[in-house]
This record gives sequence, C-alpha cells and structure tokens, in this order.
Amino acid sequence: MPGNSFGYTFRFTTWGESHGPEIGCVVDGVPPRIALSEADIQPWLDKRRPGQSRFTSQRREPDEVRIVSGVFEGVTTGTPITLIIANQDARSKDYDEIKHSFRPGHADYTYLEKYGVRDYRGSGRASARETAMRVAAGAIARKILGDGVTVRGAVVQIGPHAIDRARWDWDEVDRNPFFAPDAGIVPTWEEFLDGERKRGSSAGAIIEVIASGVPVGLGEPVYDKVDADIAKGLMSINAVKGVEIGAGFAAAATPGEHASDEMRMDGDAVTFLSNQNGGVLGGITSGQDVVARFVVKPTSSILTPKRTVDTSGADVDVSVKGRHDPCVGIRAVPIGEAMVACVLADHLLRHRAQVGPSEK
Amino acid sequence: MPGNSFGYTFRFTTWGESHGPEIGCVVDGVPPRIALSEADIQPWLDKRRPGQSRFTSQRREPDEVRIVSGVFEGVTTGTPITLIIANQDARSKDYDEIKHSFRPGHADYTYLEKYGVRDYRGSGRASARETAMRVAAGAIARKILGDGVTVRGAVVQIGPHAIDRARWDWDEVDRNPFFAPDAGIVPTWEEFLDGERKRGSSAGAIIEVIASGVPVGLGEPVYDKVDADIAKGLMSINAVKGVEIGAGFAAAATPGEHASDEMRMDGDAVTFLSNQNGGVLGGITSGQDVVARFVVKPTSSILTPKRTVDTSGADVDVSVKGRHDPCVGIRAVPIGEAMVACVLADHLLRHRAQVGPSEK
Amino acid sequence: MPGNSFGYTFRFTTWGESHGPEIGCVVDGVPPRIALSEADIQPWLDKRRPGQSRFTSQRREPDEVRIVSGVFEGVTTGTPITLIIANQDARSKDYDEIKHSFRPGHADYTYLEKYGVRDYRGSGRASARETAMRVAAGAIARKILGDGVTVRGAVVQIGPHAIDRARWDWDEVDRNPFFAPDAGIVPTWEEFLDGERKRGSSAGAIIEVIASGVPVGLGEPVYDKVDADIAKGLMSINAVKGVEIGAGFAAAATPGEHASDEMRMDGDAVTFLSNQNGGVLGGITSGQDVVARFVVKPTSSILTPKRTVDTSGADVDVSVKGRHDPCVGIRAVPIGEAMVACVLADHLLRHRAQVGPSEK
Amino acid sequence: MPGNSFGYTFRFTTWGESHGPEIGCVVDGVPPRIALSEADIQPWLDKRRPGQSRFTSQRREPDEVRIVSGVFEGVTTGTPITLIIANQDARSKDYDEIKHSFRPGHADYTYLEKYGVRDYRGSGRASARETAMRVAAGAIARKILGDGVTVRGAVVQIGPHAIDRARWDWDEVDRNPFFAPDAGIVPTWEEFLDGERKRGSSAGAIIEVIASGVPVGLGEPVYDKVDADIAKGLMSINAVKGVEIGAGFAAAATPGEHASDEMRMDGDAVTFLSNQNGGVLGGITSGQDVVARFVVKPTSSILTPKRTVDTSGADVDVSVKGRHDPCVGIRAVPIGEAMVACVLADHLLRHRAQVGPSEK
Repeated sequence: MPGNSFGYTFRFTTWGESHGPEIGCVVDGVPPRIALSEADIQPWLDKRRPGQSRFTSQRREPDEVRIVSGVFEGVTTGTPITLIIANQDARSKDYDEIKHSFRPGHADYTYLEKYGVRDYRGSGRASARETAMRVAAGAIARKILGDGVTVRGAVVQIGPHAIDRARWDWDEVDRNPFFAPDAGIVPTWEEFLDGERKRGSSAGAIIEVIASGVPVGLGEPVYDKVDADIAKGLMSINAVKGVEIGAGFAAAATPGEHASDEMRMDGDAVTFLSNQNGGVLGGITSGQDVVARFVVKPTSSILTPKRTVDTSGADVDVSVKGRHDPCVGIRAVPIGEAMVACVLADHLLRHRAQVGPSEK
Repeated sequence: MPGNSFGYTFRFTTWGESHGPEIGCVVDGVPPRIALSEADIQPWLDKRRPGQSRFTSQRREPDEVRIVSGVFEGVTTGTPITLIIANQDARSKDYDEIKHSFRPGHADYTYLEKYGVRDYRGSGRASARETAMRVAAGAIARKILGDGVTVRGAVVQIGPHAIDRARWDWDEVDRNPFFAPDAGIVPTWEEFLDGERKRGSSAGAIIEVIASGVPVGLGEPVYDKVDADIAKGLMSINAVKGVEIGAGFAAAATPGEHASDEMRMDGDAVTFLSNQNGGVLGGITSGQDVVARFVVKPTSSILTPKRTVDTSGADVDVSVKGRHDPCVGIRAVPIGEAMVACVLADHLLRHRAQVGPSEK
Repeated sequence: MPGNSFGYTFRFTTWGESHGPEIGCVVDGVPPRIALSEADIQPWLDKRRPGQSRFTSQRREPDEVRIVSGVFEGVTTGTPITLIIANQDARSKDYDEIKHSFRPGHADYTYLEKYGVRDYRGSGRASARETAMRVAAGAIARKILGDGVTVRGAVVQIGPHAIDRARWDWDEVDRNPFFAPDAGIVPTWEEFLDGERKRGSSAGAIIEVIASGVPVGLGEPVYDKVDADIAKGLMSINAVKGVEIGAGFAAAATPGEHASDEMRMDGDAVTFLSNQNGGVLGGITSGQDVVARFVVKPTSSILTPKRTVDTSGADVDVSVKGRHDPCVGIRAVPIGEAMVACVLADHLLRHRAQVGPSEK
Repeated sequence: MPGNSFGYTFRFTTWGESHGPEIGCVVDGVPPRIALSEADIQPWLDKRRPGQSRFTSQRREPDEVRIVSGVFEGVTTGTPITLIIANQDARSKDYDEIKHSFRPGHADYTYLEKYGVRDYRGSGRASARETAMRVAAGAIARKILGDGVTVRGAVVQIGPHAIDRARWDWDEVDRNPFFAPDAGIVPTWEEFLDGERKRGSSAGAIIEVIASGVPVGLGEPVYDKVDADIAKGLMSINAVKGVEIGAGFAAAATPGEHASDEMRMDGDAVTFLSNQNGGVLGGITSGQDVVARFVVKPTSSILTPKRTVDTSGADVDVSVKGRHDPCVGIRAVPIGEAMVACVLADHLLRHRAQVGPSEK
C-alpha cells in the first residue's frame, strides 16, 4: 500500500529500482514562482554520488538530474515537479550469485516473504540508490525554506571512533572524504576504515544534522510533531537503526535541573541558555538550532562469508562481491540533510495553512 | 493543521486538554466482529494511571473509559469507535502562577509563539494526559493483532542506572513500581529516585518495547517502513528524545561481520542467529521479535527554581509546584507499548490491503 | 478503513450511531484565535433539526451541541475541537420489526454484507442523524471563511415541481418550511407533499447551494479540484444521487458559444458576463458565485409495503413505521451548505499553505 | 498543495504538462505478482488517443506508454509502477497568440490568479492531455479488479440529442466514432457535430459508465462512500460539470414507492427488481451494476470570437485556432471508465484491509 510518499503539504513520491532504466520522484505542493533549475539540485546529488573516494562504493553514476515538469521559464508553476535520473552503471550480472540466496542484513528475505517476488538486481527497490531522489527533493525543500535556513550535516562517529566536539569546524566538513567536522579525527578514520575494508568487513557511523535559522512555531502536535516527523524521515533511510533529537539518549542520565533549557531575555529577544532539547519543545520548533542525530549500521554487503539460507530452503554461505561502501554512513550525510530539510519545508507550509505566515 | 491523528488504515484521532471536561479518541478502520468492551481497555489504562506509587504523579484520576460508538451487542461494527474519559482531579489553580511565564523544557513558549494563545491549565493539549487515549487505542490494536502477538515493555534505565540484561525476567515487570524486568535494580532505583525527588530534581529513563509473534512481511517501503512508523509513534510521545531499533546506536561501533543477523534453516523454518536488526529488515518485519527502545527526558516540572522569561518579556524564575512524576519515563511503558501495537495493527491491515492475509 | 473523515487541512471526523448515547465530531486544523462558542453552531443545527413542521421527521431531538475541547476563554486554540450532541429521543423498539429484514433503498443489506454485523437501530451509523455533525463542522468552517463569504442553500424542486427561478428571493427561504426561495411554489409543494404523505409515499428534491464572496484561486488541480471535492462532499450525504456545478447536465445541450463565460473589465476588476461554469474554472474558483446543485432521492422509509428479503433468505414484505421525513431533501439544505462551506474552508487553508494568503 | 494524487490504498500521482517533454504517473499500492506489460495498457490509451476521426482533435500523439519501474520479469513487484509517455506533436507556437489573454471557459485566468505564473502552452497542466495518465492507471486498476469485473462506458447524449436506451447494444460502441451504444443515433450525431464544427462552435455530451461484476461490500461510509469517490473522480476530469449515480437527478420526480429497489430471493441469491440506486446503497456496492453518468461541457476552444480580457487588463476578443475536439466529451469515455475502475480497485483493497478478502 502507498508507502513511497513522504510529507503532507510538501510531498514527494519516489520510484525506481537500482537496475531499472531510471529512478525519479514527483514533488508536489511546491509554492509557485520559485526560481529552480537543475543547477540548484545537482550539487547536492554530487555530494551523495558514489565513487568519490576509496571509502565509498565504486559504482560510477553521474546522477545527472533532469527536471521534466513543473518548471516553466525558470520558475516553479505550483504543479508537480518531476525529477528523473538515468541509471547508467548497473551491473546486474554481479547479482546473479545472490539471486537465490538471502544476504544477511539485507531486505532480500523480507521482500520475498512479503511480496512473493523480488527484483534481486542490486537490491531492486531496497537499494540505497533510491536515496538519490531524497537528496533531489531536499534541494527543492531548501529553496522553500529560503536562504535564512541552513541545514548541514556531518559524521560524528565511525566505528568506535567519535569526533572531539570541541574541535567542531563546519569548514572542515567539505575538506575530507568523511564529512568530518573535526580534522583531527580524519587520520584515525582513514586507518580504521582501510583496515576494516581490507579484512572484508565494514563499519557503522553516526551522523548529526543541524538546521539553523528555523522559525519558531513549526510542528503539529500531537502526532505530527516536527521531531516525530524527523524521526520517521531519518529512520526511513536505508540501514538507519536509531534517531535522536538534542541530548537524545544521554537525556536518561541527565539530572532534571540540567535537562530543560533555561531562558532569558536578550534585549527584546528570548534566548535559551542551552539546547538540550535540540530546538524542539512539545513538538514545535523553538527557534534554536534543530539538532538531530542518526546511526547507520555497517554495510551488510561484505566480503567475509556469512551463513544464510537460499530460496529452496537450504543452508548456504554467501559473501558479497559487488561494489559497496565500506561505511555506507558517510554518504548518508546529504541524505539526512535532505530529509530534515523536507520535514521543515513541509511544516513551514503546514504552519502557514493553519496559522498564516511564520516570521522569525 | 491536522496533527492529531495517527495511522493509515487503523487510524485514531485524539482530542482534549488536561483540564477540559473530557478527553477522548476516535478509532477508525477497526475490523468488524471483534469482541470489545471497556474491560478490554481498562487494564491498560490502569497500568498508565498516575498515583499508584510515590514515584509517579499524585494526580488522582480513575481514568475510567467509556465506549460511546462503534460497538454493538459486544462486537465492533466496523464504524468508528469513540472512547471517552472524564477529567476529574484537575486543579487549575495550581497553574495560575505559571499563567504568564514559560516553564523551561515545556511547550509553553512554543505553543504561545505558534498559536498566539494557549490553555496554560495543566499544559492544556501538551499535557501527558493525552497519552491515556493512546493507551486506549493501543488496547484495540492488540485485539486486532490477536493473541499470537505480544507487545510488552520494560524500563531498562533510570538516570545513570541501567539494568543487568542477564537478569531479564518479564515476570518481574509487574512486581515493582518501575516496570523493571530486573529485580536486582529495584533498590538502586528507589534510592536514586527518592534522592532526586527530595532535592527537587527529576530523572530520565530508557524504555524497551518488544513485540513477539509478529508475522513476517509487515511494513511499507520505502517511507512507511515499519521501523520508521515506530520511530514516529514513539518520538511523538511527550518528552521522548530518541528512538532505537535493535542494536540502535550501538550499531555504529559493531563490526560489519556482527551487524547483520545470519540465518539458518531449523527444519522447515528460517531462523536468525541473532537480532541486531530488531526484527526489521528493509523496513519489513522479519518474523523475529521487533525490538524498540526510547528515551524519556527528566520531568521538566521540578521544584528547583529555574531561570525563564514571562509573556511581558521580563526575566523571572519559576519553580513548579503542581503534582508531577519525578520520573515521567516510568509511566511511558504502557504508552510505548500502545504506540508499537498501533503501528503493527496498522501495518497488518495495510499489508492485507495490498498483498492479502498475512500468515505466520 | 478510515472513511469517517472529510477534508485535508481543515478536517473533521464524525462518529456515533442513531441510537447510541451520543454523536460527535472532531474538527482538526482550525486556525487559532477565532472566537467560537456553542452559540455560533447551534443556529445551524436548529435549522436542520427534525420535527419543525409536518414535512419533516417527528423525532424530537433538541440537538444541543457541546464544545468539549479546542476552545479556551472563548477562542479556538489551534487544537482539535470536539463537538458532542446527546441522543435523546431514540426509540429503538420501532426497529425491532426490521431487525431481520432489509428495507429496500436502505443500507441494511450492504452494511450486513460488508461487515457481517449491523446496528439495526435507526439505521445505526447509516442514519441521517450523522449529518448533524456535518452541520456543526460547517458552522466552524463558516467562521474560517469569515464574514465576506456567504454560503446559502435553497430547495429548487420537490417531486416534479420546480421553482420559478425568476421569482428567486433569498429572504423567502426562511419564511416557509421548505427553504423555498420562491414563495409562489409553496402552496404547490404543500399540497403535493401532503398527498404523498397521506398515500404512504415520499418525494425527492433538488437543492441548490450558492457560495458568494469566495476568493479567486481556491482549488488544487488536478484531482483535488474544488468542484471535485464539492461533488464528493455532497454525494457523501445520505440519499444524494447526483451533483452539478454551474450549468450542470444542461451543459450537454448548450452550444459552445454560450457555454464558456465571457469576460470584460469593469474598471480595474475582471467581470464575467455569465456563470455557466458555476464559479469554477479548471477546478479553481474564479471569484464568481460557486453554484452547486444536488438531488436527494425520496425517503426510502415509507408506509407502502415493499418486497424484500430477510436475513434468513426468505421473501418478506416490509413497511416502515418509524418517524420519517416525507421529503428528506428539505432538511438537506443546511447539510449541503455545511459541506460546501467545509470544502471552501479546507481549500482556503490549502491555498494558503502553498501560495500564501489569498486576497479578494 | 498536493492535489495530483488520486486514491487511498491504490493511489496514482500524475505529472506533466501538455507541451513538456513527457507526461507520466506513479501508481502505488498495486498488489504484487500481477502479470503486467505495456500491452495491457496501450489498448486503453489508443481508445483515448486523439486524431482518430474528424470529431476529435487532430493532434497526432502515438501515446506510446513505457513502464519504467515496478515490474520485474513480467509481473508487478508491489513497488511503485511508473508509466511515461513522451509528448511528440506539441505545437507551442499555436499558443503564442493567447499567451497574454484569457480564453473564456478555460483555466487560464484562474491558474494565473492562483499561482501568479502559468505555462500557457497548450493549457500546460490544465490540458486534457493529463487524462492519458488516468487511462493508463485505469488499465492497472482493471488488472486488480480481475476478469470478473467489467467497466464499460458509452456516450448517451451529444448536444440535445440523446440515444434511445431501448436500442442499447454494447457491441455498437466500438463500431462508431462516438462510442454510441445506439447505432440509430450515429447519423444524427454526425450531422449535428459537422454542423457545429463548421459554424465554429462545439457540443457537450453525457457519458454513462457501467461496472458489472462488482462484489458487494465495497465503499467506506460515511465520507468515502464508493459513490462519493466516483463523483470526485469523474468531476475531476476536465470540463465535467455534473455526476449522477443510478437514477440521478430523475430521482427528484420519482415517487418513493418506485425509488427504492425491491428485493427477492432467486434461489440462494438476493436479487434486486430494479436499479434506481445504481448499484450503491449507503455508499456501499450492492452487487448490482454500478451505474454512473457525467456531463462534459462543450469544448471551450472554438473558432467563434469571444469577449475576454488580457493580462494587462484590457478588453480583447479571442478565437482559438489550435487543434481541438468539437466535442471533447467523446474521448471522455475511456477516461470515465478509468476513473471508475480506479475507484473500485482502491475500494477493493480498502475493503480487504478492514474486513478481509471480498467474495462475490
């Protein structure tokens, strides 16, 4: 049943399989008269694109996006915007081997059990290739949010190695192949990941996304809280196993007097003295930075043989040769950013529906 | 804009404020001919009810539920089921003091900024009182899931004190006021919470919910993955700041060869050799236990004075006297169970829509 | 599956059966800070109330509405507004006779076939009693639309007798028991309906609803056209068998040169020289009057015995004694108005979401 | 805001403009393992295709459909199915003339007022070209409904000339360029339409769609009644101004004793002695033929000059040269069929969700 759409007033629907001819999305509800061209979308796709370092999949996809509808003479018209990317470097033959066996950690088994059929080539619909369209939709969401809102992500942990938050520098993020905000961690991660890759293993990661400049008042209590929608959006990304807002799980051990962010006037403006709540109170943005974190499990496709079963019900061992990211979490940065941007854009429009324009 | 509904084919809508005359919910999409009476719902409400130990709020609410529609001669009719609970022990006067000031950590500020008006009595709509209706809806969800599916929760951490998982015993959960599955932790938590309460503070907690007997195949990729919907459902509970599935954030540091659950045949049945993925692969249930965890921040209402501002824009200090849970996470157990049950019931029906009846 | 809600950004959900203790609705998405009390809603309910003339059902229901949530200190808070009406004059014994037989023209047969169970008392959920909650929701919709928008209805045909449109006078509508805008037709309808009632029959009717002052630009092409939503809303009313916009079915025989409304400038304003399109072009309001018409079939419950079958599969005859409207279409006027008002309010908010505030 | 999707569990989203590179749709919620290829869809598109007689538009579009996702090795996989048609014969130059003026009866004015921008080429998104994708989606809906359900349409009136229903013969429908079920009316319509075309005018039409073999029990009261959804679906088609179910508007003048269809047993089966209600009782299918009728207004684009205004606010006259159908209602037959098929397929799945498989 319809599970391929995300959002309420700003809603996108994605389609396509890893080894089909094209993947695409339809973005509906976009306000009219926003300047939009492929050049607004391509840079974000390039950021997610595989094959840019030895730490990501070697599949070569230019991921060149094409706007097929909804834009006229350089601006959005208010009608659905369709974005299409052609698949180019699909090597289906790589997958013949696993046609009849279920790769552990993958959706092979559950797709077949659910649907009674599966497109095994490159994981079909379950492939992380789908996430390219999230990034594309996210680029449009950013246009709706406007220049006042910034949505940025960074990797804060790979394997057991966390960054030193005291050294956080946004400028570093684009200077290393890990989207690390801490230059100091880069050699550690290089060495660690090279090791994991060489011994046929893979590594997990934690990504942090921060949205700044978000107007106060976004979010629809009680079920469509902005953080509930962010949690859904991030958890829907392939391989994600957890989501936090603000202090997150650390809140369990925080004493009550430090958990709620105190407030003071700063001239005419209300300011918060901390941000344990990650910019969300009661499901509504507070005007502080919205801070979300999510964990991506280690890539399931590894060279080390693993025990599994095949479709005939026999025990077999499988090792996965294809071209895979040793740490799929790295490329999750632009995807996580996109999902947060999409949630915020949706809630900006939802808020405008009920209450009228929001001001910061 | 409509944010007070949850679910797609099994959908409930809640309404009511902490100090209004009644709170209620409408549960739509329930299959017909299911035996249902208040007696099926009340026990779960009783579990959530405040005032049952010194570790929860002293507000005395019998929380007696009334079925007002959708049931005829003891069975559901397929029409919307409305459940209503009268508010009885609302002491609005307790809130006069905070009428004009924003309690830190609460939704006071964001509600007023968003809507330009707020019902300050007992937090109005933002009160955890709303969660009673989630529990009530969850009781109906359990009836849809049937006896083969069990959804149980337990507190696994309070403050910095985590249980010893080796001592996990479901039978213990109902024998202590903390829903602890580990009898050994109980004295520690008692002492810790008494201390926090006495010094005017409060504590956070982590709750784990496990659903057993869940059929394989539930979940709608790619955006309505069953774990994405669980994440949304749990994150939408008051004071929740994080959600995990299976290994959760620990997956970051798990090597790839241990992260994906291997499989073997056990006679005719497929079995998994571990459950790092928490019963979900590619957003679809695998037939293993569905394992979710969420963190509840410390109660924001504490006796210790905190810095804040008032509606006139002046700096003030506020300490909250009302009747509050020193650890609101404890009562979150039945709420978390309810949300997981509702997500699973919804996906059971969604799956049936597209693919036909699911069998285990 | 959830079929008891209407609307997208302004959405209401109704519940309750004809002979249950209460009926009610939850109205979600209402903008905050709108003055609202029972006195804003009751007059519309009074207009629909049965028992006000010999031409409507003799069931005596005060239909006194109670606002249970979502309003604080006289204004809406942006949270869900729940409205409840107690059922008072339900005489379930009247229905014992038809407990086991299917009344022709009613939903008895289809409800039982669909759900395998039915609440036969007063048609249960299928009763026109449900429409009271539409009228209540419509009263809130009117408040959202504001004083600049007027939504009015009138009966334009009963049985074979149509009004003379040249004599249309809105002031007449409240002066006769038929909501007739043509005083001249009243004696004809009285005589006709008395005759139908006495011979144990019933009559159909056509109702016209006109919304004036509607801003240009409301409606979401291509599937959520404002006229498509009006068609759905009106067709969802009990016993409605057809809906028209503007010229409606007469458009088939209209030559092309008269079918499309020509335009001219009137000073700075665009004016239309006719309104064949009923105020909607391409699914979007044009600023002209929105004109909708719908037909209500004759009341199915009549004294004349009719052939039917019973639940045991035997041929039986049934005549319906209860208390019924000889022409149920009369009381459909406030219901039709309410549905049009709800569609327009929803689209006003939807438009505001995507494009920003609409101006007239 | 998202208005480009239709359906709930079987849902399709269309995109594209008349003169864009491609138009397409995404069909989500389709059950898996249904055999599907372009050959299942193309015949229905061919039926709608323009340029097949002098009575339809001379635009030459092969309307060749391409399945881009959701089908693997000849069967549906349960993932979204994307269908794309390339636009080939778009002559945008034809529209330069009306770039700055509003064609009466068209959506030119309302689109510009709503969005502040419009793609004027071939009416952009408001073009009837969009309906090709409805027909494509309808072909998939037919596969879901299965061979037991037949959805057929016919033109029953053009201009003032109605068919003789006594001569109804489904076999005739494909033997004439009007989809007329009455061979006797064909010469009348030919002569009439030739006349209208020559004098630069156009004609309206009434189409009837009949679905046979529909299981009893489809439809979700009270707002998602199956006839309410049919009404919305048909009214959302370009140029439609009215929708009827069963007796439709004639029900107003039908005496009560003839309006409700009597029932009798026929062996073990329930039979109805008439079908005034068009196969729907209380919003739920009764197992009788579902009968819907809709009216299509005369083509607004005619050669006869008409008064209008331009974007600069000046009075101008406009006559439309492009290539247009003299009676756009003719090609509405396959479109109406498609919408009815889509509604029924959606409700089949919705019913299955709540109640389980439906049997006839």
